[in-house]
Amino acid sequence: MMIHKFVMPEVIFGNHSIHQVGESCLRLGATNVFIVSDPGVMEAGWLEVVIKSCKQAGLKYSTFYDVTVNPKDKEVENGAAMYIDNECDAIIGIGGGSSIDVAKAIAILVANGGHIHDYEGVDKIQKPLPPQVMVPTTAGSGSEVSQFSIILDTKGQKKMTIVSKSLVPDIAIVDPETLTTKNAHLTASTGLDVLSHGIEAYVSLASTPLTDVQAKNAITLVAQYLRPSVASKLNMEAKTNMAMASLQAGLSFSNAILGAVHAMSHAIGGRFPVHHGDVNSVLLPHVMEYNLIANPKKFADIASFLGIDTRGLTYMEAGKKAIDYVKELAIDIGAPQKLSEMGIEKETIQEMSQIALNDACMITNPRDITIEDIEELFRKAW
Amino acid sequence: MMIHKFVMPEVIFGNHSIHQVGESCLRLGATNVFIVSDPGVMEAGWLEVVIKSCKQAGLKYSTFYDVTVNPKDKEVENGAAMYIDNECDAIIGIGGGSSIDVAKAIAILVANGGHIHDYEGVDKIQKPLPPQVMVPTTAGSGSEVSQFSIILDTKGQKKMTIVSKSLVPDIAIVDPETLTTKNAHLTASTGLDVLSHGIEAYVSLASTPLTDVQAKNAITLVAQYLRPSVASKLNMEAKTNMAMASLQAGLSFSNAILGAVHAMSHAIGGRFPVHHGDVNSVLLPHVMEYNLIANPKKFADIASFLGIDTRGLTYMEAGKKAIDYVKELAIDIGAPQKLSEMGIEKETIQEMSQIALNDACMITNPRDITIEDIEELFRKAW
Repeated sequence: MMIHKFVMPEVIFGNHSIHQVGESCLRLGATNVFIVSDPGVMEAGWLEVVIKSCKQAGLKYSTFYDVTVNPKDKEVENGAAMYIDNECDAIIGIGGGSSIDVAKAIAILVANGGHIHDYEGVDKIQKPLPPQVMVPTTAGSGSEVSQFSIILDTKGQKKMTIVSKSLVPDIAIVDPETLTTKNAHLTASTGLDVLSHGIEAYVSLASTPLTDVQAKNAITLVAQYLRPSVASKLNMEAKTNMAMASLQAGLSFSNAILGAVHAMSHAIGGRFPVHHGDVNSVLLPHVMEYNLIANPKKFADIASFLGIDTRGLTYMEAGKKAIDYVKELAIDIGAPQKLSEMGIEKETIQEMSQIALNDACMITNPRDITIEDIEELFRKAW
Repeated sequence: MMIHKFVMPEVIFGNHSIHQVGESCLRLGATNVFIVSDPGVMEAGWLEVVIKSCKQAGLKYSTFYDVTVNPKDKEVENGAAMYIDNECDAIIGIGGGSSIDVAKAIAILVANGGHIHDYEGVDKIQKPLPPQVMVPTTAGSGSEVSQFSIILDTKGQKKMTIVSKSLVPDIAIVDPETLTTKNAHLTASTGLDVLSHGIEAYVSLASTPLTDVQAKNAITLVAQYLRPSVASKLNMEAKTNMAMASLQAGLSFSNAILGAVHAMSHAIGGRFPVHHGDVNSVLLPHVMEYNLIANPKKFADIASFLGIDTRGLTYMEAGKKAIDYVKELAIDIGAPQKLSEMGIEKETIQEMSQIALNDACMITNPRDITIEDIEELFRKAW
């Protein structure tokens, strides 16, 4: 038996929990916090809520919201310089995966120095990071609970995967109300990202009983609540359950790691300005088809988590139904069906495949894969 | 919606993981560790394994193994004095719930001073505790992941419940091999304690979706693996799954708290030298009968987690089948059936009931309860 490791932050979950962000920083010993966000979150008013909470807790603060989709090394280095100039002693990330990943990456640099590229890979961080409190607003990335930060190397035009237990934040504050300001497209895209986290973690070579229960619950909740969540901004039952799905999927993949969907999606996201969740949703059914024979039993389990009646079916038959379900779900919520729809150039397939093959997430993919297999998967998804 | 909070330590799970205890302390900055254990664990050879691991990591160490069943305030104060004399800077607890609860209580005193009685109740700990690494050897208490420490007030003859996030250890190391030295009686007793944790947490007023998934899995695993685990010391599949069940039940009740079974069992354990798990197993079906109408749906869920086919049954019918199942399980594994078998005097019922009514665990019991109700439950269990 392998030795399993499982880490997670303290989690505060529920409506209005965002108002606890200041007090949470205070509890961690902060006096002067650095708040990382993005323009969309600022516009929706959530940054202001966080600032108010920090003020009420008597904290000094600085804000940095120059974060873009597929966030870049330069943003991290600018943020770190500002953190140091302003003598901050704790960090808040509020937003989607981009804001939170940048907040984590800034935490690395201010405590360890150097360039963010120095920390690419597993366990490269030596010194303890400042206190980190993360507030996700997308029910998607799971970064608020994970050991990961994904930052774009702008020169190399590829995404760097940084993995370390130090990147598990101290406190994750998950407030489903923050989801009410997301539009339908972003809800669909991030929700399918949650599904891809749950499915890749469940069949990952590094999955354990502890990660399996979280993945199972995440997949079950997505099947029940993603459609209604896309349908209505104000359906709080759906928002709450998607926030929980994202959290549980995050806990699962943080500890079980992911697979080919994410390895391939990181490659694409390193070169093209596309949304991570959109790419994942296109790739997911193709990778499931490829991986099915690696673990028919687990794919049959996924079918039952999705609500499919698998009685009388073989594992392979049930697994195929799970794949069909994922395709139908993407159609129902208006997600993209092909990579070509997103303006990704077909000529890059070979190069993308090579990058995907070397991505840290590929190591735990349940089926062995060659560069030719990846190229074939990309072609199918085009 | 209530705001849910969930905390857990870093978990290292698997055969031979006990050898990582020294390295784990080192990673937390320890140089001189204080190891708390009990004579049974020492005799089984596990204390030696921990000492060897500490030596290999280059750590200084002191050992303290004067811990008894239902551990006492005096043991905590003696341990704390020795920790301070020896200038230790981290603490290891290895053993059942008693050793781990004493290790936590020593951590409180060495960092906060005073007497352990000062910390009874919720959130009374002010200063941060030294690094804590816990190694459970019983698949029972869940203390290695919980916010609880239960210490006997010897003068007042009652158990004090201390609850604080600071009591969640830094690292829990769960090695199923440590279960191979337990006899059948202790395996049965601690296994039924796990079941009572899972069931009380699942129906607790403070349960949340995050605690429910852990409770569900714990209950399912106990139903599958407790009988075989009692039957054979060397059935590693059963030991591994019971270790996982204990861990997940601990994660669940640490965050959802418990109910009347534990409130009543703490009262008994404060006065009589009986094993906590034995008392719980006698009380559990009676309390389930009492609580059934508070949440028929959740008791029906429990029936299905136990493997009962609930199709065509009402929630009440299914819940009653769950209660019957728990009674049969206790019989199958030779657990005690009545409190009178354990030498507990019937004259103490009234006094015990008053103490149980005031126990912190009673607050989250799903059905309102009066002192007369508790007396009646004790009489039924006699």
